[in-house]
Amino acid sequence: MTDISPLAPEKFPDLAPVKGVQFATRAVGVKYKDRTDLMVADLAEGSNIAGVFTLSLTASAPVDACREALKEGHGKARAIIVNSGNANAFNGKKGIASVSNIVGEAEKIFGCSKHEIFTASTGVIGQALPDAKITGALAGMKEELGQASFEDAARAIMTTDTFPKGASKQVKIGGEVVTISGFAKGSGMIAPNMATMLAFIFTDAAISSDVLQALLKTAGDKSFNAITVDSDTSTSDTVLLAATGQAGHKEITSISDPALDDFKAALDDTLIDLAQQIVRDGEGASKFITVKVAGAETDVAAKTIALAIANSPLVKTAIAGEDANWGRIVMAVGKAGEKADRDKLQISIGGVLIAGEGEAVEGYDEAPVAAHMKGQEIDILVDVGISDGQATVWTCDLTHGYIEINADYRS
Amino acid sequence: MTDISPLAPEKFPDLAPVKGVQFATRAVGVKYKDRTDLMVADLAEGSNIAGVFTLSLTASAPVDACREALKEGHGKARAIIVNSGNANAFNGKKGIASVSNIVGEAEKIFGCSKHEIFTASTGVIGQALPDAKITGALAGMKEELGQASFEDAARAIMTTDTFPKGASKQVKIGGEVVTISGFAKGSGMIAPNMATMLAFIFTDAAISSDVLQALLKTAGDKSFNAITVDSDTSTSDTVLLAATGQAGHKEITSISDPALDDFKAALDDTLIDLAQQIVRDGEGASKFITVKVAGAETDVAAKTIALAIANSPLVKTAIAGEDANWGRIVMAVGKAGEKADRDKLQISIGGVLIAGEGEAVEGYDEAPVAAHMKGQEIDILVDVGISDGQATVWTCDLTHGYIEINADYRS
Repeated sequence: MTDISPLAPEKFPDLAPVKGVQFATRAVGVKYKDRTDLMVADLAEGSNIAGVFTLSLTASAPVDACREALKEGHGKARAIIVNSGNANAFNGKKGIASVSNIVGEAEKIFGCSKHEIFTASTGVIGQALPDAKITGALAGMKEELGQASFEDAARAIMTTDTFPKGASKQVKIGGEVVTISGFAKGSGMIAPNMATMLAFIFTDAAISSDVLQALLKTAGDKSFNAITVDSDTSTSDTVLLAATGQAGHKEITSISDPALDDFKAALDDTLIDLAQQIVRDGEGASKFITVKVAGAETDVAAKTIALAIANSPLVKTAIAGEDANWGRIVMAVGKAGEKADRDKLQISIGGVLIAGEGEAVEGYDEAPVAAHMKGQEIDILVDVGISDGQATVWTCDLTHGYIEINADYRS
Repeated sequence: MTDISPLAPEKFPDLAPVKGVQFATRAVGVKYKDRTDLMVADLAEGSNIAGVFTLSLTASAPVDACREALKEGHGKARAIIVNSGNANAFNGKKGIASVSNIVGEAEKIFGCSKHEIFTASTGVIGQALPDAKITGALAGMKEELGQASFEDAARAIMTTDTFPKGASKQVKIGGEVVTISGFAKGSGMIAPNMATMLAFIFTDAAISSDVLQALLKTAGDKSFNAITVDSDTSTSDTVLLAATGQAGHKEITSISDPALDDFKAALDDTLIDLAQQIVRDGEGASKFITVKVAGAETDVAAKTIALAIANSPLVKTAIAGEDANWGRIVMAVGKAGEKADRDKLQISIGGVLIAGEGEAVEGYDEAPVAAHMKGQEIDILVDVGISDGQATVWTCDLTHGYIEINADYRS
């Protein structure tokens, strides 16, 4: 339907395999023809899992079920099952029944508790999920485990995405090499008809489920919760982190264990990489924008201000027009509702200070700023002059392409 | 620059004169050529005034000065001076000096305290206001008072507006006819380079300044604070309500005086009319959208949900595309962060119930909904199924026109 985003990476990255994780994919015809739309990830016995989900108060049935499984199953998991083409959302009691049917079949096939099966669905909402197409395929897919690559898995969960998204890192814990590899999908943030944000990250590290949950929460705030395309929020957003424990080191049971330091950084990097790829696939995006806010009262205040800038239609359209319009940035800072000193505010674009002390910097060199605005990577730095709180968020510009995708589409 | 909005009223309405209020306008060349850009409203001695302003924490110098005058002058006023073409915002200490120069000249000419002079400025930001062009015209304009009509005054304060906005009502207080007439400007909500929202409302009712302030706060929340074009907030938004007290009835000094009942309703109507006209001039607007939310936990919760719907780029683009996309409305309800029952949610478009009890209403008649979506006036009603809180807000759709105006413009 659409060309590949101009901001896409050149190719899907090489993802290191994760001990104890295997994939199978199939084309079962939930909605799409001639492409895979069902992904099963098999997790070795003893795997732990952590999850973060949409904050939407109208969350979908699969999200509700994942939250319950996480709680009742004490963070253990054996399989993740994801379909594209249908979000299984806002379809009444049918949604709950579909999740129950899939989980019921999977617990038999994988020989585990129902609380060890996690599902996610993405695609159109308001329609019954043809779950028999999924349950009918699971037994066969179990036999095919290992035949699908990370890229195959990433492709099976795509909806309006124009490219598959993956990231991978290796570090050591207790002298052993551990791998973190994951993939994600999402292009608007978020078109609930089509473009829920999903991410699945796997590691062979041995980490207790409570520590895993804490790690995911922290990394999620720095990554998936620091990106925005259009400020909208899907009813189905799901991020799962599974740890198989097969790397060979002693299990980590404390979040403050120094052996985790490199792992924490690598997990943050992996999630930030995936999150940035989602922004790079933003609907109609022509520019990737980094917004850094410094000098705020707290880090939380800095993030609120950064998101106000990143979500401002006026800032996003100015950048689409390659206009270094600092006045719109001032406006966005003002509406964020966090402390800022109008007369100390400093704004830099592409590393050039263009506004400070309450007014434009007289005689700043416009040529490098104009050149920066013509590029695909835009850097905005705002110091609000209060204290030392800081945050970074990423977004894309707002273009005619966004309107075309979202106004010209009929459900 | 642009054609008149397709949602504009046929003509400027007939506004009843207000005893004790006179206008003068001039073309002083602040920025524009061949059009008026300075408006003076003279208020009879003894007039009271109330004001509500932008919540932006980077408010402009004129807004800061109005707030101070209101406080220090105990709600008394003799003149309102407004220029278009330059917002006198984010230009450092020069902004404060310009306000001081204008107020200083005006207090001499009008023979009053500086706290009885109110100013507003709208137009480009980040540039020094050529205030000498304004101060040099004030003495002459005092001689011309009464020569300008409400429509003249409304036109002098326009920036990117495609039509002047006015509204008027007459009711009785204590047996005497009182008039409320006012005008406004604004087209984006809000492009700080050009499109600050300003409104000036005048009445000959005799109302103490504290009651006037309470009335304006209530009416403002139902009107100017219940509209949104793009969720952005100007640094200069200003609404002033002046009461000359010349209608001949006894002064009202209590907000709960039953003699005020009709006046309250008329004031609400006047402000809602002006606010809706601003939405009808929204940048790129092709459809006027009314969002009613019922069944919320409180009225405040209902308004939060209604604004989440009205500000959602996905809802606004769907309406631009004439798509009755209730899935995007569900999404917006979910992200609002207020209580909603996913499985009791009811959504009507154009009076037709299209979703209820957590799913699409099977077999609803699509023809009238499709016809409604093709019209210029779109009605959305959402019942979130919790309690009896309700609210109504107004917005417009998000079109290619918005992107053209905001991305293709260079500052």
